[in-house]
Amino acid sequence: MKIYGDRQSGNCYKVQLMCDLLGLQYQWIDIDILAGDTNNAEFLAKNPLGKIPLLELDDGRCLSESNAIINYLAFGSEYLPDTPYELAKVQQWQFFEQYSHEPFIAVARFINKYLGLPEDKKQEYLAKQVGGHKALKTMEVTLQHNRFLTGAQATAADVCLYAYTHVAHEGGFDLTQYPAIQNWLVNVSGLKGFTAMV
Amino acid sequence: MKIYGDRQSGNCYKVQLMCDLLGLQYQWIDIDILAGDTNNAEFLAKNPLGKIPLLELDDGRCLSESNAIINYLAFGSEYLPDTPYELAKVQQWQFFEQYSHEPFIAVARFINKYLGLPEDKKQEYLAKQVGGHKALKTMEVTLQHNRFLTGAQATAADVCLYAYTHVAHEGGFDLTQYPAIQNWLVNVSGLKGFTAMV
Repeated sequence: MKIYGDRQSGNCYKVQLMCDLLGLQYQWIDIDILAGDTNNAEFLAKNPLGKIPLLELDDGRCLSESNAIINYLAFGSEYLPDTPYELAKVQQWQFFEQYSHEPFIAVARFINKYLGLPEDKKQEYLAKQVGGHKALKTMEVTLQHNRFLTGAQATAADVCLYAYTHVAHEGGFDLTQYPAIQNWLVNVSGLKGFTAMV
Repeated sequence: MKIYGDRQSGNCYKVQLMCDLLGLQYQWIDIDILAGDTNNAEFLAKNPLGKIPLLELDDGRCLSESNAIINYLAFGSEYLPDTPYELAKVQQWQFFEQYSHEPFIAVARFINKYLGLPEDKKQEYLAKQVGGHKALKTMEVTLQHNRFLTGAQATAADVCLYAYTHVAHEGGFDLTQYPAIQNWLVNVSGLKGFTAMV
């Protein structure tokens, strides 16, 4: 299978990490959004929304959306529960990540790290801090009682939220305020097969 | 089981619709966000993020995030495939909805319908049109070939995207530009057990 992605993107890193934790083989194809790689007819035929990461199976079928991809990869493994409530809990954290975490923490990181926090983006950057801390507090409350987000066992929910949480400081979020999150980051990075973001 | 929600919210309507399509019994508890119903200790104990919809099972366990809830409810039914790729495709559309559809179409609707399109929100409203039309075009491309979003059979992906798409005109989106979406709306509203949003 092929993964189209950008190594700097947390959403793409989720897919890399899930593959590595599961010991899956894949071909990584570097995509440069700014060079228009996601905007040509060939790529849009694979994903009409023109977004990465994108998974292409050996039979040509494609799958987009980072969390849908990692759940597909983890299906039947220890990283995805097969009981309805526990499976839904994994998805609960993943939808939380895409709606209440990534749009604040990943965007603040982008403005700070990649745009260099320009004056005309400072107000947006500051606004992102509020939502980002709300998301981090929600995680902290849960992780005070659980080794991983859904309990004693690491799942695709942890892979999902590790991606942008472990680089949240690059978006101006001081993680020393969140000791349970810091412990959890160590727990995730200690999983067998773990690989770091480039 | 209990559903905590607001009948005006598309995210809450998804849960109502999924229950009605499946013929499930539930107790609906009206929540008024503006009155602080999601911000008291009792509610925050059920959902630390203080959001609706929220599902509370008879044994007290809770589940948040609209799409995680409808997938839980649909588990084992005709509305949720049990093969890995088809299941991931449902989730692909749901993550698309939460990241690339709802933040544009639902927010434009909120600004227009509930805030009355005030002058100081006009720029935000116009910016939301661009992303909203991009999302609708992505749906249109797929629905030109498929009766439902993932193929011939309605799934939780259709329940998810029906919620805010069928009221997109209230956010200023002219759906006559999207004939395949219009056909699909008719297909969804013709499903056995379908109930309209209040």
